[in-house]
Amino acid sequence: MKLPIDPATSASVLIEALPYLRQFYGKTIVVKYGGNAMIDDTLKTQVMQDIALLHYVGIRTILVHGGGPDINALMKQMGHEPAFVGGLRVTDAATMEIVEMVLAGKTNKSIVSLLNRQGASAVGLSGKDANLIVACKMASEQGDLGYVGEVARVNPQILTLLVEQGYVPVVSSVATGPDGMSYNVNADHVAGHIAAAVHAAKLVILSDVEGLYADYSNPSTLIHTMNCRRAEEMLASGAAERGMIPKLQACVTAVEGGVERAHLIDGRKPHALLIEIFTDAGIGTMIAS
Amino acid sequence: MKLPIDPATSASVLIEALPYLRQFYGKTIVVKYGGNAMIDDTLKTQVMQDIALLHYVGIRTILVHGGGPDINALMKQMGHEPAFVGGLRVTDAATMEIVEMVLAGKTNKSIVSLLNRQGASAVGLSGKDANLIVACKMASEQGDLGYVGEVARVNPQILTLLVEQGYVPVVSSVATGPDGMSYNVNADHVAGHIAAAVHAAKLVILSDVEGLYADYSNPSTLIHTMNCRRAEEMLASGAAERGMIPKLQACVTAVEGGVERAHLIDGRKPHALLIEIFTDAGIGTMIAS
Amino acid sequence: MKLPIDPATSASVLIEALPYLRQFYGKTIVVKYGGNAMIDDTLKTQVMQDIALLHYVGIRTILVHGGGPDINALMKQMGHEPAFVGGLRVTDAATMEIVEMVLAGKTNKSIVSLLNRQGASAVGLSGKDANLIVACKMASEQGDLGYVGEVARVNPQILTLLVEQGYVPVVSSVATGPDGMSYNVNADHVAGHIAAAVHAAKLVILSDVEGLYADYSNPSTLIHTMNCRRAEEMLASGAAERGMIPKLQACVTAVEGGVERAHLIDGRKPHALLIEIFTDAGIGTMIAS
Amino acid sequence: MKLPIDPATSASVLIEALPYLRQFYGKTIVVKYGGNAMIDDTLKTQVMQDIALLHYVGIRTILVHGGGPDINALMKQMGHEPAFVGGLRVTDAATMEIVEMVLAGKTNKSIVSLLNRQGASAVGLSGKDANLIVACKMASEQGDLGYVGEVARVNPQILTLLVEQGYVPVVSSVATGPDGMSYNVNADHVAGHIAAAVHAAKLVILSDVEGLYADYSNPSTLIHTMNCRRAEEMLASGAAERGMIPKLQACVTAVEGGVERAHLIDGRKPHALLIEIFTDAGIGTMIAS
Amino acid sequence: MKLPIDPATSASVLIEALPYLRQFYGKTIVVKYGGNAMIDDTLKTQVMQDIALLHYVGIRTILVHGGGPDINALMKQMGHEPAFVGGLRVTDAATMEIVEMVLAGKTNKSIVSLLNRQGASAVGLSGKDANLIVACKMASEQGDLGYVGEVARVNPQILTLLVEQGYVPVVSSVATGPDGMSYNVNADHVAGHIAAAVHAAKLVILSDVEGLYADYSNPSTLIHTMNCRRAEEMLASGAAERGMIPKLQACVTAVEGGVERAHLIDGRKPHALLIEIFTDAGIGTMIAS
Amino acid sequence: MKLPIDPATSASVLIEALPYLRQFYGKTIVVKYGGNAMIDDTLKTQVMQDIALLHYVGIRTILVHGGGPDINALMKQMGHEPAFVGGLRVTDAATMEIVEMVLAGKTNKSIVSLLNRQGASAVGLSGKDANLIVACKMASEQGDLGYVGEVARVNPQILTLLVEQGYVPVVSSVATGPDGMSYNVNADHVAGHIAAAVHAAKLVILSDVEGLYADYSNPSTLIHTMNCRRAEEMLASGAAERGMIPKLQACVTAVEGGVERAHLIDGRKPHALLIEIFTDAGIGTMIAS
Repeated sequence: MKLPIDPATSASVLIEALPYLRQFYGKTIVVKYGGNAMIDDTLKTQVMQDIALLHYVGIRTILVHGGGPDINALMKQMGHEPAFVGGLRVTDAATMEIVEMVLAGKTNKSIVSLLNRQGASAVGLSGKDANLIVACKMASEQGDLGYVGEVARVNPQILTLLVEQGYVPVVSSVATGPDGMSYNVNADHVAGHIAAAVHAAKLVILSDVEGLYADYSNPSTLIHTMNCRRAEEMLASGAAERGMIPKLQACVTAVEGGVERAHLIDGRKPHALLIEIFTDAGIGTMIAS
Repeated sequence: MKLPIDPATSASVLIEALPYLRQFYGKTIVVKYGGNAMIDDTLKTQVMQDIALLHYVGIRTILVHGGGPDINALMKQMGHEPAFVGGLRVTDAATMEIVEMVLAGKTNKSIVSLLNRQGASAVGLSGKDANLIVACKMASEQGDLGYVGEVARVNPQILTLLVEQGYVPVVSSVATGPDGMSYNVNADHVAGHIAAAVHAAKLVILSDVEGLYADYSNPSTLIHTMNCRRAEEMLASGAAERGMIPKLQACVTAVEGGVERAHLIDGRKPHALLIEIFTDAGIGTMIAS
Repeated sequence: MKLPIDPATSASVLIEALPYLRQFYGKTIVVKYGGNAMIDDTLKTQVMQDIALLHYVGIRTILVHGGGPDINALMKQMGHEPAFVGGLRVTDAATMEIVEMVLAGKTNKSIVSLLNRQGASAVGLSGKDANLIVACKMASEQGDLGYVGEVARVNPQILTLLVEQGYVPVVSSVATGPDGMSYNVNADHVAGHIAAAVHAAKLVILSDVEGLYADYSNPSTLIHTMNCRRAEEMLASGAAERGMIPKLQACVTAVEGGVERAHLIDGRKPHALLIEIFTDAGIGTMIAS
Repeated sequence: MKLPIDPATSASVLIEALPYLRQFYGKTIVVKYGGNAMIDDTLKTQVMQDIALLHYVGIRTILVHGGGPDINALMKQMGHEPAFVGGLRVTDAATMEIVEMVLAGKTNKSIVSLLNRQGASAVGLSGKDANLIVACKMASEQGDLGYVGEVARVNPQILTLLVEQGYVPVVSSVATGPDGMSYNVNADHVAGHIAAAVHAAKLVILSDVEGLYADYSNPSTLIHTMNCRRAEEMLASGAAERGMIPKLQACVTAVEGGVERAHLIDGRKPHALLIEIFTDAGIGTMIAS
Repeated sequence: MKLPIDPATSASVLIEALPYLRQFYGKTIVVKYGGNAMIDDTLKTQVMQDIALLHYVGIRTILVHGGGPDINALMKQMGHEPAFVGGLRVTDAATMEIVEMVLAGKTNKSIVSLLNRQGASAVGLSGKDANLIVACKMASEQGDLGYVGEVARVNPQILTLLVEQGYVPVVSSVATGPDGMSYNVNADHVAGHIAAAVHAAKLVILSDVEGLYADYSNPSTLIHTMNCRRAEEMLASGAAERGMIPKLQACVTAVEGGVERAHLIDGRKPHALLIEIFTDAGIGTMIAS
Repeated sequence: MKLPIDPATSASVLIEALPYLRQFYGKTIVVKYGGNAMIDDTLKTQVMQDIALLHYVGIRTILVHGGGPDINALMKQMGHEPAFVGGLRVTDAATMEIVEMVLAGKTNKSIVSLLNRQGASAVGLSGKDANLIVACKMASEQGDLGYVGEVARVNPQILTLLVEQGYVPVVSSVATGPDGMSYNVNADHVAGHIAAAVHAAKLVILSDVEGLYADYSNPSTLIHTMNCRRAEEMLASGAAERGMIPKLQACVTAVEGGVERAHLIDGRKPHALLIEIFTDAGIGTMIAS
């Protein structure tokens, strides 16, 4: 049961938020949405409330998402056995069609719907719309991975148009590749490239861990803040946990592309996004230049 | 083999097109895309070329599409048996999910991709994006049809924004219903309502017949032009062929909503769209007020 | 000592504020600032923080103020004995000069300075600037009151220009009268007329009481909400406490002029303004049409 | 008699035009109009149709013209004997007055009228309007040529204003010279300078020959494409036919001033302009950087 | 010799002009230019200075002119004998060509040039440009007058565009008639219709008399001010001098079309235009509603 | 008694003004108002008429003023003895409060009122509004001068906004200092810094002398024009009269900051401002780069 909050506390919170409101007013924030926050219904609603609140305080927000468990579920239902090579899904034409249907036709539209119900006006896009994300085929030493791509270029005009007009773009991680074919691209990478292309003030990546650990077997080694060089060293030395690698790469892409700060935060905590942005209690790991 | 066209003929065609260019410059045309032109690869490419050409001569074009055979194919693949009552698909939650994935995640994105390759800049939307199409549940005397809806309202601002900025919106016939659920709506109806809402100069519906017949068993009775009243009488008297009913209703919706002319044309003929718009040889059936 | 607020509470407060942010985004709110909140330094700072926060969440704010104790202080210092007839200051030319110096040269600039330090960009105006407030001479049965005026007309263009460009106008209650002379006008009335002229969404009047009482000798009779008719009846029947009369009149002027809601709130409570606007716990008395 | 063109051919032509429509959409094309196309009534009407079509497909068009046989006709009617020195008209004050009346009062207004009847909205200008063309007196070794000038500067603001608002400017080759006197300038040169000044995408010069010949006594030596350097060499070496010299100079001025392509085409062929721009069959001689 | 004016007088004049500057700032004034002021070189220069000054004090000015003696001179030079029926020039095709050449090619461009030298930026137009003046053929009881027209409609968009951008349009009294032919129209009438169409604040007609006389044989009967009704009575009763009839008609057209004031002033007086507009000493005859 | 001016003289004056109108149209002029012209009622009205006239001929005007005798008068009335050190007022907190009340609450508003009555739309500002003037504390070898500041920075956005919208800003010489305290700054210096910050075309300083003298004991040594270097030399060598030092410094600040010309003129002469700007008879001393 929710206890009523006394007015003095309410006022304190709002006043604490004041400098952050000032700082991000009219700026763009890119949020990578994924992990548990995309599965748990309560967390999901909270993220949507957070995005709607960002919108109403004049922050331009772009949401980027991948697919998660839905893809495997549909593949199984259709009798396709998911195949992975080196952590990457081998994506033949039939698989790609399923991936695209789930990402652009199910996950994306479901997020759009939730945001609209929170009072934002969301518009779903895939990387094919207005050629938003252009991919090249990923080279792999372990054989042909099929329609797996790497982000080659972002054409951000459609995003700029939509955020300027007060819409919240929701972008799924499907790209347009050579010859107009659909390519599966990493959603963290998409978020990093978009943040750089729209000159975002912040990139925030929601994940299922507290942040980045200096030693990922030891939770007491959480890194609160690091610069780009150290992030690159961790990537080079293999110190980063496997699942965190693309997230860390995205942060580096964003910060090197001119984004002031990139954040890895724990999406399992309720309203982690709001707390990160509007309170003095910074959470997770921040990468800055 | 394509014979070269002599320059004089080229010039004649371009000059014949002049008054139509003048008439539709800066105007909006809504095209309902469906039937054979959506299946046959050559016809498909030609429709996309036609849309791109409309775009380049300054005509604002909105494409509306339904799903066609893809939906049944996926349903079968997933072990769902399509069920129909009175010609309407009974749409339970699982079916609706499949319908939406196919329409918004496969058909829509595939059209977007084809248009982009022809040089237009297309953006795919479903009726859930920016609450574009709002549906109410369809009442049926033959039992609960599930997530089958009727178009209740169109919010055309996102379409206006996009066409003004030179994008070609591609709209799939999924609507947002009560409580934000997805509803399956008739694509012809969607096209008719959008044409009225954006004050289109023309609605063009591509089908697999030559046009409307006064007596549908007799191809010599093709109606070249008719007014709205006669169209309503045909609907009331049951004289229209079953498959043509929603198309005819869409034309009536559009014309009564202020659209000058609605056209039923034969999508099996190459470049039927261009010929209808840019040559003196009108084709198919035209409904005007 | 301020205890740290736990993140969950912070998030709850921000989320509770969401619908209000949505409602007032881009709207104009007129705040009449006076009483204790203008004397107590802590309260003063808090009001300025509140106004700055309104500014940063995209609410256009106009602050109206009167003079308070400063005027009498300066008059005494200069050897003028304040004279009152029926509660109204008898204002000869020398008195008017003092009133204007204090209001426009001291109080106004001091508020501007405090707001600027909170991060808003404030611009001080008197009713003479751009002929913002035009007064006629107040008729009185108790003899000539001198330069005491009633608001005859508001020319709000300068206010609209400034709020559209992100400035916070701070308006002192000096008007321009016949022949360009300065006139002393009631600051509550000024706030009511300005709220109507700029089509404000809200008028909020800070006072030193909890709100309006049905029976002003009995604090348990606080009126939470009332319509315009009842407010007019209270004014006609003499039921309103003397000090509340101009405040209630201002509310009636505003609401009859099209402002949706007018509020009389207790400026002695910290952050009363924020609490009124952004929490579910409405405070004070609300007058609506 | 005009044979009806079959729909498939119409469609082919329109589709062939597509990439060119794309390329020139919103761009500016400067057309120098002269020679036979200005005398033969059928050709004249066709040029006007072509310009109107360019207008309706969103290409901004500026028409530049000289005077042709009308000037000599009027001079004779008025008893002036035309005098030429080195191919240049000796232009005393009386002659200049006749030249200006014919160019700005007859030829110009007659072109404006023809364009308006084709549905474009044309506005006639001479180089004196808004100081569009500023000339200096031409130095000549063969004595004083009077009011014969060379283009010194173009003030293109009025052209830009008009084309942006959808008008077709029609410019006659009269310039304003030292002390505001009228000067006769070469219309080809005017077209070249204007093309450079408005950053045109193309300059097209209509003449009475097929194009430029490497050896002008031999029609089989038509040059299809050449770069600026070769054009300058031909001018320097005297290889260009006398009548083609100013046309070739204009092409060089334009291309060196940043215009992508300049074309010398045969205005005697019906709709040469359309064929050059919208079909794959390039005609005449193209000069590019 | 010009005596130096003492500074005090200069200041007085400028200050006297102040209320008129205020009144006409940003407004449009249409000036009909003709008579002696168009022939005498000193007067001509002064009118151009006056127009330039209007321009620099922010008054939007449109100049309308007819042809005057130049037309007859050229006709005689070319061996055409001018023919008049009831005061109207019989205008066959050859005559019309001469009229148009003189008006649009000589008189118009010469005025443009003079204005440009005074620092205004003038653009010459005839009624054919952008279909500015549309005429119908004048019916006459005395036989076919040929290309003599009456103003049927004014399309003022091009004038509005030009004055908004700071240009001074100079309009010659040639109209476009049925089938795009040129028609000769009365310049006073053109000025009256244009004044009404652009919602001018004033129409000023320069003539060679002091103003309108109640009894035109008696200079002491100059009418200083009259309303529209009286002007119409004078026209109906034949009380107006023949030469003043079209001028008086133009004033009635303007005032009935919403122009506040129309003036008939004596163009033979130096700077009559400035004196009328900027000094307390009104001159000539004023017609108001 | 004012004699009527004959029309020819009026016209001459207006025509003489033409090139100056042309030169300053749409430009900004900063006027420092002070001295006798601020005390004598006739001169005061004339300055306001001059400013209003500048406004109506499209010149953007900013008025800067100091306080003059009013400050001492009020101080005495309140029993404060003005104290000066090296010509600078020792300004404790109480004195500063009086200074600010007089400048921003009396002098400023009285100027605003006078300008409004002349038909301009004036808006009064102090340096605290929108942080227009930022001061640092003045260092002094003769002890602490209290709240005496030097102009550190000007934030001219509010001035630009107001003049673009047709308002006349009237700026009093109060600045915002460290910690938001009010600082007394020299009004001449303020005018010089503002002129530089808004890229004014002219700075005009009204004083009570004819201009600058080479030898200030000898009125026949009036300097008509000098460059910036000479002005700096005069300041360095101590050749300038004490009272003229800040005025001369302001001129140097302006001219070095990019203002074309700065003028020291005799405000005791009626309409000196108009005469300086609009007549050939330049007055006072001009400093140019």
